[in-house]
Amino acid sequence: MQFFNVKKEKKEKKDFVNTVSNEKSDKPVLKLIAVGDGVTKNLTVYEYGNDIIAVDYGIGFPGTDDIGVDFIIPDMRYLLENSHKVRGLIITHAHADHFGAVPHLLKELNLPIYANKLTQAYIQNELEEKQFKGIKDTVKYHLLDATTGVADLGVFKVSAFNVNHSVPGSLGIVIDTPEGRIIHMADYKIDPSPILDPPMSLEQLADISKNGVLCLASDSLGSRSKGSIPSEKTLNDTFPQLFAKYPTQQLFITTISSNISRMYQITDAAIKAGRRVVPMGRSIDSSVKIARSLGYLPFPDNAFVDLKKSFEYTPDTLVYLIAGCFGQKGSALDRLSRGEHRDVIIEKGAIVIFSAEPNPPGVDIDVEDVSSNLVLSGAEVIDHTNFDNLHVSGHGHRDDLFKIAMTVKPKYYVPNGGTPIQMHAYANMICESGVERDKVFELQAGEVVEFSNGYAKKGKKIEVQDLYFDGIGVSPIVIEDRKVLSQDGVFVIIVARSLDENGSTGSYGKIEIVTRGFIYVKEARELVGHAKTLINNLLTKNSEKSDDWGSLKFKIEKEVSRFLFKETGRKPMVIVHSINV
Amino acid sequence: MQFFNVKKEKKEKKDFVNTVSNEKSDKPVLKLIAVGDGVTKNLTVYEYGNDIIAVDYGIGFPGTDDIGVDFIIPDMRYLLENSHKVRGLIITHAHADHFGAVPHLLKELNLPIYANKLTQAYIQNELEEKQFKGIKDTVKYHLLDATTGVADLGVFKVSAFNVNHSVPGSLGIVIDTPEGRIIHMADYKIDPSPILDPPMSLEQLADISKNGVLCLASDSLGSRSKGSIPSEKTLNDTFPQLFAKYPTQQLFITTISSNISRMYQITDAAIKAGRRVVPMGRSIDSSVKIARSLGYLPFPDNAFVDLKKSFEYTPDTLVYLIAGCFGQKGSALDRLSRGEHRDVIIEKGAIVIFSAEPNPPGVDIDVEDVSSNLVLSGAEVIDHTNFDNLHVSGHGHRDDLFKIAMTVKPKYYVPNGGTPIQMHAYANMICESGVERDKVFELQAGEVVEFSNGYAKKGKKIEVQDLYFDGIGVSPIVIEDRKVLSQDGVFVIIVARSLDENGSTGSYGKIEIVTRGFIYVKEARELVGHAKTLINNLLTKNSEKSDDWGSLKFKIEKEVSRFLFKETGRKPMVIVHSINV
Repeated sequence: MQFFNVKKEKKEKKDFVNTVSNEKSDKPVLKLIAVGDGVTKNLTVYEYGNDIIAVDYGIGFPGTDDIGVDFIIPDMRYLLENSHKVRGLIITHAHADHFGAVPHLLKELNLPIYANKLTQAYIQNELEEKQFKGIKDTVKYHLLDATTGVADLGVFKVSAFNVNHSVPGSLGIVIDTPEGRIIHMADYKIDPSPILDPPMSLEQLADISKNGVLCLASDSLGSRSKGSIPSEKTLNDTFPQLFAKYPTQQLFITTISSNISRMYQITDAAIKAGRRVVPMGRSIDSSVKIARSLGYLPFPDNAFVDLKKSFEYTPDTLVYLIAGCFGQKGSALDRLSRGEHRDVIIEKGAIVIFSAEPNPPGVDIDVEDVSSNLVLSGAEVIDHTNFDNLHVSGHGHRDDLFKIAMTVKPKYYVPNGGTPIQMHAYANMICESGVERDKVFELQAGEVVEFSNGYAKKGKKIEVQDLYFDGIGVSPIVIEDRKVLSQDGVFVIIVARSLDENGSTGSYGKIEIVTRGFIYVKEARELVGHAKTLINNLLTKNSEKSDDWGSLKFKIEKEVSRFLFKETGRKPMVIVHSINV
Repeated sequence: MQFFNVKKEKKEKKDFVNTVSNEKSDKPVLKLIAVGDGVTKNLTVYEYGNDIIAVDYGIGFPGTDDIGVDFIIPDMRYLLENSHKVRGLIITHAHADHFGAVPHLLKELNLPIYANKLTQAYIQNELEEKQFKGIKDTVKYHLLDATTGVADLGVFKVSAFNVNHSVPGSLGIVIDTPEGRIIHMADYKIDPSPILDPPMSLEQLADISKNGVLCLASDSLGSRSKGSIPSEKTLNDTFPQLFAKYPTQQLFITTISSNISRMYQITDAAIKAGRRVVPMGRSIDSSVKIARSLGYLPFPDNAFVDLKKSFEYTPDTLVYLIAGCFGQKGSALDRLSRGEHRDVIIEKGAIVIFSAEPNPPGVDIDVEDVSSNLVLSGAEVIDHTNFDNLHVSGHGHRDDLFKIAMTVKPKYYVPNGGTPIQMHAYANMICESGVERDKVFELQAGEVVEFSNGYAKKGKKIEVQDLYFDGIGVSPIVIEDRKVLSQDGVFVIIVARSLDENGSTGSYGKIEIVTRGFIYVKEARELVGHAKTLINNLLTKNSEKSDDWGSLKFKIEKEVSRFLFKETGRKPMVIVHSINV
């Protein structure tokens, strides 16, 4: 990919800088580099001398300003520039914001992947996409879970322990370094009675920590939510109750597509209620397939019905497990709610159950839209406003996070997986327990903590730029242009230039104007007329120095922009283009 | 405005239709027309024979798809087409989603406005804008509040009673019609101990309802929230506590700019703590001025300090009342959080208090962004996650709404002010109490209830189209174009045509291509080259029937779009334009 090649050229210069800074001491420093920031697009790099390991490489989701962007991936340049040092990529769990960008990285760098079976299966599933055809069978997987013992990744000794989360097999990572032990805990909660996993063991964590921990990198997403999070077990009665309450209705249940333990609970209750599960939507379908292939859903084959065959059954013998619990546009649930799903139509009195709320930030309006469309289509919506125990989050709340911090009792803290306000709330929580403020590092994207001789300080920030994807890669300039276009449209000015024998402009001819997304064309006639007069005047006035088309073009753009803003209060993108005739 | 004139032509036809449908009976029917739908852009029309009254005319806020739109106003065509029947516009309370579009309506139709003093002052404040210069002094206001008795608006007899809400003086409306009594209650709650208003009287409402109510049109926004909403009084200790907790810090408090009773509480506490209030942000500044001019903030003049003079005071003697509690881009709080406010800079350890959360749908990410920027700038954020009793909503919860319904005991119900899922939850609540389903009308925009001889049914829906504004008016086509532009940018093809003597195309010359927001120009060279070849081939192939430029242009657009999608997976807006040379 063009973008990366350009940047690779910087490599030598970068290595030179590293060498200089390391000259000061013989012993390397241990670096923790927060390449990904915030809640999603996770990537943490650990570096010591000639060894680098990375933890997680997830996708991010576009903000409201990232127009036309499907997803964002973390900057991979540091890994590419230092590819000779990279010993492996560790993935903590099978969520897209932790593994989803791995295929894109693998295209550039075939580094070994350390992950559990489930995460490997999800990555492999992503690699089925056409664009990854070439690398699909070349990935070097290493199994990493609570049973696999210690793996040597250069100077780093890496092992894993169980944590609880909303996807099975989630791992906390123990990284032994020459500077001491790091415990890296991405998304987690403490659940004394999870469905498919063993409960996370605080005793084990205490044991891991007993000889001293240099640094705990911890999830901080739930740091602003009070108390502890309830167990997944609180949902055990939920689905049997719902199936009993609606014995004959057409039933849909929507949940997060990677929430396999929820799928287990739903399928178990469905079988007991005499219903079969119909996976509906690409992401749910993949997840069910992966989960079944790995034994997470140990039910008979006839517990599941393919969507295309579901018409053979009566509604009271099925339950649709449907993707789109966050109201995602284009999801199966969204299409169903608008009567646009190819295979299923909502029947009058159908029940749609949301087993995912309360929602993460940013999706409430979409969920409300879908819910509204569902009731307009004749369905009843069951969600947290009218039924209890429909969902528990995968992220520990404040008291859970604190319990982990007090169990590990590290020398230093690095909150991760949260927004700056969440990381700050984590830091405040830690400091209120007596820890000094300079023992907690709230890192922004690219910021570095350097550990040396048991002491930590912020290092020199690395340059980080997210990579935007809208199917194929896209540069920030393009995104910026789209933003301008989306606000006030485009105003294209075409000027015919006739060249004299010397190739410089002989004279300017006709002016044509094309505009879209700016003002309704019929209303714009007068405005366009005035703009043409303005341009004509500029061309005439500047005809003496007419060979300097570049600066004249710039002048026209500036003057027309000013004119349009004065007249309409809008700032369309003004493009001036000449055509030589 | 062009748009309305075009539509006015339909008037005669429309009147004809009305006449035909009314021929069936001598007696007119009473119509309730839900022109505005959902939570914002409120407009309800009541019509009986030759008389029409309208209730509320508010602005709406753009959805994520309404790119570049600042606000939306309800369709005014029905009022314009029937302007000879319109007796007046009643505004229930001084919130922008209920009165904010009035100036735009007044530009087209100088109808009498029935509202309380505060609402009149807010409307008049809006009319200060340059675009309303001509109508500013021509508005025909009629005072309407709980004291003004019955006003005759044609066949309608209109009076008002106090309700509680988050702006003082909010009104419930009693509309006596030849078909019976309507009670129209837009946004409300029941507060036994409000700050500036009297508590809403259920006894009075029972008395108003005692002879039978045909229809209750009721707020339904809170129908999915359990229980009752707490009183504003629960906040009485909040601000004194906060001022005591942070005696020397730079203090900012952000709240909804129309929440005058909150301003009262804050100012009262500030004075007692030896601080003066600095209004910060246009909307807060206007509100404080209006509220003070009407006696809602009866504090000495020196309780307030102008922002421009605030530098004369030390931080511990001021509190900034700052606009932007929903994290609105460009608001005073947003600019402050990014260090871009002209007049004030955040000091290390500053305290920013959010007195507005939990948030309405759709703003959580913006609030989190602003909060994150604030902590990155060195402030501490106080909000509902770390301090209690910072806000109560202006909308009653489920139990409040039910209490009102059971007090009024109308024959028919029309939930308003909510999304379809909220209106449906309201309907479910009413029906669960034994009311038949066909007594509750859940209306979409344009839907009509017809009351005749004490019986109600849905009437013929009217056509409704929201009007989009981005400073000046903008048509749906323009919005649609912006959406396309924002997704994949624009690809402009310019073809030079030389005309022969007859004015038909002699030959095609040079092709120029300009693209923005589609693909990075440097990467696009090859693609643009291929596109040119494609176009050239099309031009050559079609040169025989070259006078039909229209269909050739269409063909080029289609073929190039297809080519670009095949190559890139993107669908930029392809514009083909010719220039005659």
